[in-house]
Amino acid sequence: QGILERLDAGEIVVGDGGFVFALEKRGYVKAGPWTPEATVEHPEAVRQLHREFLRAGSNVLQTFTFYASEDKLENRGNYVAEKITCQKVNEAACDIAKEVASEGDALVAGGVSQTPSYLSCKDKAEVKASFRKQLDVFMKKNVDFLIAEYFEHVEEAVWAVEVLKESGKPVAATMCIGPEGDMHGVPPGQCAVQLVKAGASIVGVNCHFDPDTCLETVKLMKEGLQAAKLKAHLMSQPLAFHTPDCGKQGFIDLPEFPFGLEPRIVTRWDVQKYARKAYDLGIRYIGGCCGFEPYHIRAIAEELAPERGFLPEASEKHGSWGNSLSMHTKPWVRARARKEYWENLRPASGRPYCPSMSKPDGWGVTKGAKELMQQKEATTEQQLKELFQKQK
Amino acid sequence: QGILERLDAGEIVVGDGGFVFALEKRGYVKAGPWTPEATVEHPEAVRQLHREFLRAGSNVLQTFTFYASEDKLENRGNYVAEKITCQKVNEAACDIAKEVASEGDALVAGGVSQTPSYLSCKDKAEVKASFRKQLDVFMKKNVDFLIAEYFEHVEEAVWAVEVLKESGKPVAATMCIGPEGDMHGVPPGQCAVQLVKAGASIVGVNCHFDPDTCLETVKLMKEGLQAAKLKAHLMSQPLAFHTPDCGKQGFIDLPEFPFGLEPRIVTRWDVQKYARKAYDLGIRYIGGCCGFEPYHIRAIAEELAPERGFLPEASEKHGSWGNSLSMHTKPWVRARARKEYWENLRPASGRPYCPSMSKPDGWGVTKGAKELMQQKEATTEQQLKELFQKQK
Amino acid sequence: QGILERLDAGEIVVGDGGFVFALEKRGYVKAGPWTPEATVEHPEAVRQLHREFLRAGSNVLQTFTFYASEDKLENRGNYVAEKITCQKVNEAACDIAKEVASEGDALVAGGVSQTPSYLSCKDKAEVKASFRKQLDVFMKKNVDFLIAEYFEHVEEAVWAVEVLKESGKPVAATMCIGPEGDMHGVPPGQCAVQLVKAGASIVGVNCHFDPDTCLETVKLMKEGLQAAKLKAHLMSQPLAFHTPDCGKQGFIDLPEFPFGLEPRIVTRWDVQKYARKAYDLGIRYIGGCCGFEPYHIRAIAEELAPERGFLPEASEKHGSWGNSLSMHTKPWVRARARKEYWENLRPASGRPYCPSMSKPDGWGVTKGAKELMQQKEATTEQQLKELFQKQK
Amino acid sequence: QGILERLDAGEIVVGDGGFVFALEKRGYVKAGPWTPEATVEHPEAVRQLHREFLRAGSNVLQTFTFYASEDKLENRGNYVAEKITCQKVNEAACDIAKEVASEGDALVAGGVSQTPSYLSCKDKAEVKASFRKQLDVFMKKNVDFLIAEYFEHVEEAVWAVEVLKESGKPVAATMCIGPEGDMHGVPPGQCAVQLVKAGASIVGVNCHFDPDTCLETVKLMKEGLQAAKLKAHLMSQPLAFHTPDCGKQGFIDLPEFPFGLEPRIVTRWDVQKYARKAYDLGIRYIGGCCGFEPYHIRAIAEELAPERGFLPEASEKHGSWGNSLSMHTKPWVRARARKEYWENLRPASGRPYCPSMSKPDGWGVTKGAKELMQQKEATTEQQLKELFQKQK
Repeated sequence: QGILERLDAGEIVVGDGGFVFALEKRGYVKAGPWTPEATVEHPEAVRQLHREFLRAGSNVLQTFTFYASEDKLENRGNYVAEKITCQKVNEAACDIAKEVASEGDALVAGGVSQTPSYLSCKDKAEVKASFRKQLDVFMKKNVDFLIAEYFEHVEEAVWAVEVLKESGKPVAATMCIGPEGDMHGVPPGQCAVQLVKAGASIVGVNCHFDPDTCLETVKLMKEGLQAAKLKAHLMSQPLAFHTPDCGKQGFIDLPEFPFGLEPRIVTRWDVQKYARKAYDLGIRYIGGCCGFEPYHIRAIAEELAPERGFLPEASEKHGSWGNSLSMHTKPWVRARARKEYWENLRPASGRPYCPSMSKPDGWGVTKGAKELMQQKEATTEQQLKELFQKQK
Repeated sequence: QGILERLDAGEIVVGDGGFVFALEKRGYVKAGPWTPEATVEHPEAVRQLHREFLRAGSNVLQTFTFYASEDKLENRGNYVAEKITCQKVNEAACDIAKEVASEGDALVAGGVSQTPSYLSCKDKAEVKASFRKQLDVFMKKNVDFLIAEYFEHVEEAVWAVEVLKESGKPVAATMCIGPEGDMHGVPPGQCAVQLVKAGASIVGVNCHFDPDTCLETVKLMKEGLQAAKLKAHLMSQPLAFHTPDCGKQGFIDLPEFPFGLEPRIVTRWDVQKYARKAYDLGIRYIGGCCGFEPYHIRAIAEELAPERGFLPEASEKHGSWGNSLSMHTKPWVRARARKEYWENLRPASGRPYCPSMSKPDGWGVTKGAKELMQQKEATTEQQLKELFQKQK
Repeated sequence: QGILERLDAGEIVVGDGGFVFALEKRGYVKAGPWTPEATVEHPEAVRQLHREFLRAGSNVLQTFTFYASEDKLENRGNYVAEKITCQKVNEAACDIAKEVASEGDALVAGGVSQTPSYLSCKDKAEVKASFRKQLDVFMKKNVDFLIAEYFEHVEEAVWAVEVLKESGKPVAATMCIGPEGDMHGVPPGQCAVQLVKAGASIVGVNCHFDPDTCLETVKLMKEGLQAAKLKAHLMSQPLAFHTPDCGKQGFIDLPEFPFGLEPRIVTRWDVQKYARKAYDLGIRYIGGCCGFEPYHIRAIAEELAPERGFLPEASEKHGSWGNSLSMHTKPWVRARARKEYWENLRPASGRPYCPSMSKPDGWGVTKGAKELMQQKEATTEQQLKELFQKQK
Repeated sequence: QGILERLDAGEIVVGDGGFVFALEKRGYVKAGPWTPEATVEHPEAVRQLHREFLRAGSNVLQTFTFYASEDKLENRGNYVAEKITCQKVNEAACDIAKEVASEGDALVAGGVSQTPSYLSCKDKAEVKASFRKQLDVFMKKNVDFLIAEYFEHVEEAVWAVEVLKESGKPVAATMCIGPEGDMHGVPPGQCAVQLVKAGASIVGVNCHFDPDTCLETVKLMKEGLQAAKLKAHLMSQPLAFHTPDCGKQGFIDLPEFPFGLEPRIVTRWDVQKYARKAYDLGIRYIGGCCGFEPYHIRAIAEELAPERGFLPEASEKHGSWGNSLSMHTKPWVRARARKEYWENLRPASGRPYCPSMSKPDGWGVTKGAKELMQQKEATTEQQLKELFQKQK
């Protein structure tokens, strides 16, 4: 059954987790570029991560094609071997995802994300051409449906949806925005309306903010669609980091990004609360983004097991709400084998010299940056490329 | 070259990280039992984790045989399929480790750990028989050397060393104790002396405490050896969690163990500081235990790259001290591409409703537990087994 | 010169601090009732506190008549000796304030605050009669001007202003509300408009919230007045506690109220930042409420000394920005004798087992309380009186 | 009855609180010099604070003669008017304390503290002469007993005790040291022994550390006395600040000293726990030092009321364990009117951007300071005086 059949029938669809962060920690993705050349270089590592998400309960395997547009790969290409072309990366990503999906009951979704071309003010045709290049691979490999994700500007997201829609396949679209809306100030409700009008059947948010903030944003999208009398399925794939202190542009601006985020990592219990809250809000495509590891996805599947009637395979290695501790030799550890314990625990950081929250960096704090902001972006990708050449 | 040749020549040996915690998050190990039947059930997952540690710089791959003694597996056996025997688990663990080790420059170490037999007051012969069963497999598979690790009582550790020493192979021994010593009150210095006298060529600590506490304990071991005019190489494989607040029995007693430890996870920069401090203390076998992911091991290898003259393979996907951020589009993120930044960052938890430290649970706080303490352990393994039968 | 002459001339008027909290710590006011019978029982203690505020720079001494309406004193009267009548309390308060004011350059303001009569749904005439009783004393004692403060409902505040206005003296009015407005949902801007229309020449907020939140509320008042093309002077007298975590009803609902607020107490440097921010916002009557001790008031006067051209008397015992440390024997303490140091210090709590923020108690968390909310208040004062009789 | 009669009879003696910190906040003492010229300049302020402590339950009023030795006053004298001589300050301090003591049941204790002469390496005779000058005043004013307090070096404390002992009056001696001992490394147990041998009838600690640390130190003193088979009464007057993070020299080295200590202030409930713990340890003279306000002293008297059979006068304005909240209009505030609530509350700081603990400044962190440490002190008082002259 396809994604829309499932959602139309009221089923819960469990998404997968965050590839770039998980594979960075495993040694296969470079923080900074965040590009997915590992599909060609180390397919076994990508395959294994897909398998873990599948086992944890994911109903969708997204091709690992984040930042795999040609302009992005080229831009970062100085360190990627020449033979690793955009086409090869995208093809390998499809092959791996399809191979693993066939081991279980999962759909494969081809994904595109925001492009440096857009940020460098290239025109609509050029940006669309970039998406179309990836779409060609997805069509050739016959993925089940398509996702446009991680867009900060609704204008670019709409262009992506328009291109993906040409395929005839179902299209989902998620933006990496918070309740304040996109980078040009378009509020979430309007973003959702534009995306649905452009052809998206599923809309929502991914990345940049913690579960609570993402759900707040999806709620605004839902209200925007209701006000416009439009219908669409809702989707959320938040960070697995607590970010109550971040500003409009999300966790990128937090001083801890990307190498000091550990104390912010959510627990499996945080994820169970998120899954329940998302469900109660009417969201039926529930997954995660950066920071979501397989056990976080399993927590979604376990929380919603009563509604779905089954547990994921990986639950063979997990007791519900800590009950696997009931045989521990120490009585006080056995006492942790219950829901109330983990539900109410306020976990300590073990870091008494660190604060609880940070002030985000940003335009306000970086002198001289305001003028740059007048241009579309602080530094265009072209400038960066030159800068990079110079450094070499 | 063998482990002792390397250490005798003054080389730094980078250990690997924590299998049970990493594989629990990936969905292959059950918290509570913590047994390694995944070697038989899901060899590809174990193989991939070995590979990641190898790639991150590990010079030793430990067979995934933690808690793989027959008494432990049987005790937990109610959920492990019957055909997964102790012998099969240990053999598979050796095969996988050897296979991956051959892909690079790594030694394979066969490992044994504390047994329920000892805790249930079985006699010396019976406990030793248990270790010997594992050792038979290690000899058959011809591992490079042997490790007795995760012992809370030096008496049992000595028995393990004595058995392993029968093989003629080099033996390392690490205890999961802190500066207060073993569970019977033997101080770290005396533990080290007993282990070396029993035949261990490498001694140190693993698990239960954070890097700082572990180094403090190894320092006491070093001083004990010096006082006794004994020579041995030093080794440390601490937790990747900050635990300044834990008591004598380590992180098990912290309220967050084992499902709420996320805010305590160390950053890669914490690990670099640990590696440097361990090196300065004269420790030359430097690895990690529970919580250590591949990127943490890479941090050890990167910190000590100046001394060793080379970087690990996985550093192709990692810029030193954040330098991969130097091309970021936002100037304030580019400003994070330097050592001073990450070295001095005090990362926020994003959890203002949580404390920084916890009071450990334990004998003091659990009423009626004191009498039980009179016996060797709160509940013997046998009692637990009965309890488990009843629950079914 | 009167209060309006000063404000009209652009002068900064420094208010005083919080009497009930300061005298509770000194042993003269009971938390709970918070009534000012100390004016009769221990005039020397009230006099001394006035003197300290005067010395710290206060230009206004408010009569200690908080909660000194007859209905409040009677209601709490069970523990106040019979002879301590409303009239005596108010008269003594005026006498003491006038005596101390004559020692320096300060005005005396007679103050009224919200009444139990209003909360018990007494009619307008009865509530007004209560204010008039206090006003009679203020007129007899000829105070300089009048303040209606600590009102949660703008309706009652307007009634108070109308009564006070009968006197012909200038009237200031402050509400203990946050940006969400009064307890009936009237936003701050509208509250300000109604108060000015009722005759208040000075409007603002006092109590219930920390300096930042109070300034946010005054800003909304200012905008409301501008939109309505009304003119009034602005005033703020916030808490000296950090309360970023409180809900609509302010610090009363925080679990720490009133006996565990210590870790929230603001530093003198926090107050200097507040004074500067208030000034920049156009507020010219700047003081404090609960928690403000004499040294906090001095911090206002010191921060604005450049604008005013003079320091308060108590600055003879205070070096600007820590410069009194420049003679310390330890070099690292001497290093604290500079503005940058104290401005940027993020002071630790020394309480690693405590969180940074709390969830406020309230209607949401107290079961069965919602129905009570339908009535004007959870428990009317009459009910409480009966409850109190029963307890005896 | 004298102090020794009371203690010998097993009575609990409640001390008073911290004058320099309380009067600094009230505007009468300058942080840095910390000298008590207010006894001459503003006797009414000193009198009122004595009265508040008396009312709160203090059985001893210490003359406000801290740092009132001639060498200290001279050294700081540049800002004290010439006519305010050492003699006048000490005489006024005695007069005020005696006047207030006569209002209730309190003893007056004349106090001396460490001198700049000692730090500047003056000889024993000169240092003793300084103490004798103050003692002359105490004898002339006929105080009830004498206290040598706030000594960092036991050598100087012994000299002080020897001088005070010449009077024939009972002598108490407290040092401002922690469990690590005095600045020359003499452990607490030995300090106590030396002080008792020099003639002190009561020994203990005051200032520099929080209640828990102080009790730990007194415990070591007690053990030292027992080992030496000496008898003395025990005394503790700790800080009212949480300082788990301070080093050997106490809170002076914390970055928050002295103007950012607010988040560390102990609650009344912390003090009740301290009083109980002190009592259980056998301490019978229980008071406070810097940070202890009247309500903190009341908390000692209230906690030990069951043992003593009476409450202090100021308890007429305080309900036991929050019971004065039982009449509050909000049910959730009424719910705070019980012991369990306040006993278990972990109060939030409202400061999510601040850490829980600080690293102390000190020799380790100030470059070049080690050589200075070779000399008795970083900078002698003489050098400071010159420095001060230059600044003028």
